[in-house]
Amino acid sequence: MLEKFLADMKSLDDNEKQAACAKLDNLVKPIGSLGELENIAARIAGISGKTHYDTSKRCVLIFAADNGVTEEGISSAPQEVTRIQAENITKGITGVAVLAKQFQSDVIVVDVGINADVENSAIVNKKIRKSTWNIAKQPAMTRDEAVRAVLVGTDTAVRAVNDGYKIIGVGEMGIGNTTTSTATLCALANLLPEQVTGKGAGLSEENYHNKIHVIQAALEYNKPNPTDPIDILAKVGGFDIAAMAGAYIGAAYMKVPVVIDGFISIVAALCAAKLNPLAREYMFASHASSEPGYKYAAGSLGVSPCLHLSMRLGEGSGCPLMFAIMDAACAVIRDMGTFEQGHISEEYLENVRGTATADNKEKGLLNAIH
Amino acid sequence: MLEKFLADMKSLDDNEKQAACAKLDNLVKPIGSLGELENIAARIAGISGKTHYDTSKRCVLIFAADNGVTEEGISSAPQEVTRIQAENITKGITGVAVLAKQFQSDVIVVDVGINADVENSAIVNKKIRKSTWNIAKQPAMTRDEAVRAVLVGTDTAVRAVNDGYKIIGVGEMGIGNTTTSTATLCALANLLPEQVTGKGAGLSEENYHNKIHVIQAALEYNKPNPTDPIDILAKVGGFDIAAMAGAYIGAAYMKVPVVIDGFISIVAALCAAKLNPLAREYMFASHASSEPGYKYAAGSLGVSPCLHLSMRLGEGSGCPLMFAIMDAACAVIRDMGTFEQGHISEEYLENVRGTATADNKEKGLLNAIH
Repeated sequence: MLEKFLADMKSLDDNEKQAACAKLDNLVKPIGSLGELENIAARIAGISGKTHYDTSKRCVLIFAADNGVTEEGISSAPQEVTRIQAENITKGITGVAVLAKQFQSDVIVVDVGINADVENSAIVNKKIRKSTWNIAKQPAMTRDEAVRAVLVGTDTAVRAVNDGYKIIGVGEMGIGNTTTSTATLCALANLLPEQVTGKGAGLSEENYHNKIHVIQAALEYNKPNPTDPIDILAKVGGFDIAAMAGAYIGAAYMKVPVVIDGFISIVAALCAAKLNPLAREYMFASHASSEPGYKYAAGSLGVSPCLHLSMRLGEGSGCPLMFAIMDAACAVIRDMGTFEQGHISEEYLENVRGTATADNKEKGLLNAIH
Repeated sequence: MLEKFLADMKSLDDNEKQAACAKLDNLVKPIGSLGELENIAARIAGISGKTHYDTSKRCVLIFAADNGVTEEGISSAPQEVTRIQAENITKGITGVAVLAKQFQSDVIVVDVGINADVENSAIVNKKIRKSTWNIAKQPAMTRDEAVRAVLVGTDTAVRAVNDGYKIIGVGEMGIGNTTTSTATLCALANLLPEQVTGKGAGLSEENYHNKIHVIQAALEYNKPNPTDPIDILAKVGGFDIAAMAGAYIGAAYMKVPVVIDGFISIVAALCAAKLNPLAREYMFASHASSEPGYKYAAGSLGVSPCLHLSMRLGEGSGCPLMFAIMDAACAVIRDMGTFEQGHISEEYLENVRGTATADNKEKGLLNAIH
């Protein structure tokens, strides 16, 4: 089943992307002067097959799960906070909930492994099991569980698209998941825990070194296969990260733009891209998380975030902000006038047209208008 | 008159800012984990004297003027494009117009020196003169004209606040104004034209070197006094940059947050901050322009932009995007729940509270929740 989703993923529609670029080059501005807004508009056209894309219905998928590794003291918050915050999201009082409302986005909370009996009809029950095992001492889950968790994410994304959502954000809630994400990143990208582990903040110097040792122990004990993302997710990941990786796959399979939040979200995105590199073409990086591993993951994935806000909340909180940027990109290509409509003189028009080729796009016309 | 605005500028209300920080620290998230959104919310509280600030009425002020230096061939577009694009803004078809509409912002176009008879009731006529003189051969304007242009900007910002606008963005339209801005920046911050001049894009290698030589000639001929921003604006600036500097002063005087757009906008912001450093406390940098001088100006001013979009359009086009970020910051402090409302356990609450002091804010509780 996962193989089918991976095998059926398509590259972007290059004709639509080129048509969007041609339209952008004819708008009343120096060529390329709206930078990433133009790149986003062109990429969305390639993804959707449409020059004009309606971004108004969107959601953040939030996968919540607990991690057995919390028993190693790598987090200053107890496991019960995972359930409490998952419920708080549905009450509209957490960071992602407030930002989603601000930018007209829905949130969908999915329980993939919260360590509690969750009785809340606003939370989708897709629990694989109550909490993973402690990765410092054993694998987080079986391979079968990892595949099932990935498919929960894929299925959730596919359903969301079938329900009419046009952009999807990928977030999480899970005490201890910076530890599992860091271990996953180290295995995926051949990095050392001491390079990428976050000092955190609730963590004392002693607890920080403990966190590094726990991640080292998890990697040494489990020896995940660096070329097998499912093996990595099963051994040192978590139900949340696995489901998030699946959500990226589902969005790409359904040809819908998908937004990366912060550190945990980008590690899951990297898992998805290792399973099929085409998944990357559908991804949009929102903000540069201040978690130190983020820049390694972004480099490995080859993405540059649009927002630099020193955020490190998680929950998918960066996604609604990026939805606003994507709205802006779609408004530019839809609503700006052409040079003809702008009554820019023939002579000037020819200057601009002369550079309006793909090759010259980077060079652009920086000072043509200003 | 300008002296009065400069002398009456106040520092932020530190009590309100501290009260906002205390409220932010009690919201259901790790301390400081919303990064710049928290800093923006706290700064807006210090500016406005209110923890909850209504950002819904906002505008971008766009100062349009022509520059005599265009006769040196430093731009690939003719002067007439200044008038045409100023009118196109009022028609809603340019970049800033589309982005302003997308983010519910008004635009106010002010003619401070367009080299044409502008017959358009949607453009505010505050023309000092039709175009400045050619800075390569003489001063751009007299000192009296420079002061008058600054006061046009200040007056426009003061009126906007009196009309109910709660955030102001500062943009421009003027063929040749990357040349005048670069000369102004070099004089203000003691930089060399070859360090900061943009290669542009419509510009060939030959024209690029010409642009550098023109800026060098302007600085050598005019010898602006590096400690006198008005002298610099008069000798190597433009009516647009002077009015923009005045708009920052007006916004600070009226205690309203003011948003910097790209390169020209940040050079004007630096002029305002040199006239009174308190002006800087009211400024918010939107996006990191890809014009090479931007980073020098941002460093000199001591600001970090939130958006990295490789934009270089001008017009104030980055301002509406920043309004959305500021909306988000205000929503966070207004709508997020407290730890008590979030039913986070007493024990955990004490952990978090233990770090909820200003000293510990930077250290935060990175992994406390996740």
